[in-house]
Amino acid sequence: MMPLAPAAPTSLVDQAIEGMRALLATGEWTLGTRIPPEPQLAADLGVSRNTVREAVKALAHVGVLEVRRGDGTYVAATTEVQALMRRQAERVEIEHLLEVRHAIEVRAAALAAGRRTRADLAALDAIAARRLAALDAGDGAGFVDADVDFHVAVVAAAHNPLLSELYDGLVETLRASIDDPTKGYPAMLPEHDAVLEAIRRGDADGAAAAGAELLDHVTR
Amino acid sequence: MMPLAPAAPTSLVDQAIEGMRALLATGEWTLGTRIPPEPQLAADLGVSRNTVREAVKALAHVGVLEVRRGDGTYVAATTEVQALMRRQAERVEIEHLLEVRHAIEVRAAALAAGRRTRADLAALDAIAARRLAALDAGDGAGFVDADVDFHVAVVAAAHNPLLSELYDGLVETLRASIDDPTKGYPAMLPEHDAVLEAIRRGDADGAAAAGAELLDHVTR
Repeated sequence: MMPLAPAAPTSLVDQAIEGMRALLATGEWTLGTRIPPEPQLAADLGVSRNTVREAVKALAHVGVLEVRRGDGTYVAATTEVQALMRRQAERVEIEHLLEVRHAIEVRAAALAAGRRTRADLAALDAIAARRLAALDAGDGAGFVDADVDFHVAVVAAAHNPLLSELYDGLVETLRASIDDPTKGYPAMLPEHDAVLEAIRRGDADGAAAAGAELLDHVTR
Repeated sequence: MMPLAPAAPTSLVDQAIEGMRALLATGEWTLGTRIPPEPQLAADLGVSRNTVREAVKALAHVGVLEVRRGDGTYVAATTEVQALMRRQAERVEIEHLLEVRHAIEVRAAALAAGRRTRADLAALDAIAARRLAALDAGDGAGFVDADVDFHVAVVAAAHNPLLSELYDGLVETLRASIDDPTKGYPAMLPEHDAVLEAIRRGDADGAAAAGAELLDHVTR
């Protein structure tokens, strides 16, 4: 590793950035919330208003915060990975993003088979039930929501925060790639059930295979 | 997507950042090079020196540039994904990073089987030969270098720029996870050959399976 040799003024800004990252990481600042005004932040973080201003600018440049003139500053992403993946999603080919999604999701399904807790399974079961109920009710928007939640919950059940962060950054792409079955598209119920059942029985290879099959349907 | 509503001063800085990102993307600024001094950058990008200074600060905060007082500003990463993955590598558990590596590498091997060009295969053959020669010569450092190059070249052969960026950011972790066989660790020659041969014959499933087997050895 190269030594980073932080100079005095930079390091105060970096401290302020670290402080804000901690507020985001602990869930104190959630997605979409307006952050406190400069004077309060300066007091909370123990730095000058100028330092706060530069830290906010830096986090705004990377897409974590969003400054709305005449209104306030809002949380646009809770991590830089999320902000970055979202920004990439606007730049790179959709095909390449889906391949990254495939990579993450298949590995996550295998890991989830070995690590899922009883709470993970309960959450997945509840989401699968919601997904089916939306389909029965002809509720296309509800179906797409439940489908997104299902995929996010599979990755969450892998209990790898970096995988989850990378994946969460792809959620908008994921949502756009899901078809509303009330318009005649297949709901792929058996494919989703196969992933869930392999995770339930702790079958890593089966979960990876079922996940890959599901993704191959999406990208075909 | 939320509207980003860029205000006037921010948008000039963002333009300068975009300009520098383009210099990095085109290879004009390579890793480790010193970037031109402020006045020249201001002229090149058509903005004020203050704007250049703020843009440099923003890219330094995300780890793309590194400001060395009394010396100059250097390229510390050629993309934000790379800088971010490298920063994450210092923060998250090594186990979680290896799982992300596994996810990317296995999928990349499968994609490479379908997309590798003649040039990709020539590069992989040359690297495999270097790897073997270093082993025969008892050159541990040369072996580790060739091993890193092999894995990076497999991902490159998938021809997915986002996968490559994410993976390139993990190279330091990758290097640290490779054992020097002159110290008695296994060189895993058959495992590496199996990945290369499956890619050569265009066998996506075989490449993924061989890649997974190789990674399972590493993480065991």
